[in-house]
Amino acid sequence: MASIFSRIASGEIPSFKIAENENFFAFLDINPLRKGHTLVVPKQEVDHIFDLDDDLFSGLHLFSKRIANAIYKAFPCERIASAVIGLEVPHAHIHLVPIHTMKDIDFTQEKLKLSSEEMQEIASAIRSHLK
Amino acid sequence: MASIFSRIASGEIPSFKIAENENFFAFLDINPLRKGHTLVVPKQEVDHIFDLDDDLFSGLHLFSKRIANAIYKAFPCERIASAVIGLEVPHAHIHLVPIHTMKDIDFTQEKLKLSSEEMQEIASAIRSHLK
Repeated sequence: MASIFSRIASGEIPSFKIAENENFFAFLDINPLRKGHTLVVPKQEVDHIFDLDDDLFSGLHLFSKRIANAIYKAFPCERIASAVIGLEVPHAHIHLVPIHTMKDIDFTQEKLKLSSEEMQEIASAIRSHLK
Repeated sequence: MASIFSRIASGEIPSFKIAENENFFAFLDINPLRKGHTLVVPKQEVDHIFDLDDDLFSGLHLFSKRIANAIYKAFPCERIASAVIGLEVPHAHIHLVPIHTMKDIDFTQEKLKLSSEEMQEIASAIRSHLK
């Protein structure tokens, strides 16, 4: 069965989409640590990110770099932190999170609860900074 | 003044080195979250990782991928997590951490205290799995 991220990338499950190309898909994390928290996934279903071939692996990171720079403009912060953890969904994904302190990137903390309208606004703000 | 990571990469400050090439340097984190916790840095001094040009940015990640696969063989675990946070040292660096649970990648937790001998053994174990 397709992973939840494949079903999101195909549009079967709706998402707050940020960007997409032939190989990669970026969308807002539905349980964000901070406003602007985005997930970037390869369309190819791979569990461990380090199992991607070198072209897709570096392509995924370059795609994430573009998204990170747009998040940084939309949500000014100390850093866009990036993290690949991968214990929850067996489909490789990069977290991009605008942070001010180390605590902001603690994945064990309680997640934000945002309305659909807020998520739409966040996605629009990030997309407006993508070239 | 050169950053602490530049002084490590140049050999001015000793480190438990894992690998090096013309552009990148990998060494054990001296305050590890878990045994095998490694830092990968570009030799170019850049504060924000997303300010690296695309070639160095993807090169750094491909270099990290090789290291991650070696750590995974030396320290079997659920995942090699990777994280770029960057609030402490203004020289871009990727953390590679062997993890079993989400808690293992919580940077606010107390760090391990390992002896020099233990660090040497860890570095040798990882290096032995680098092709």
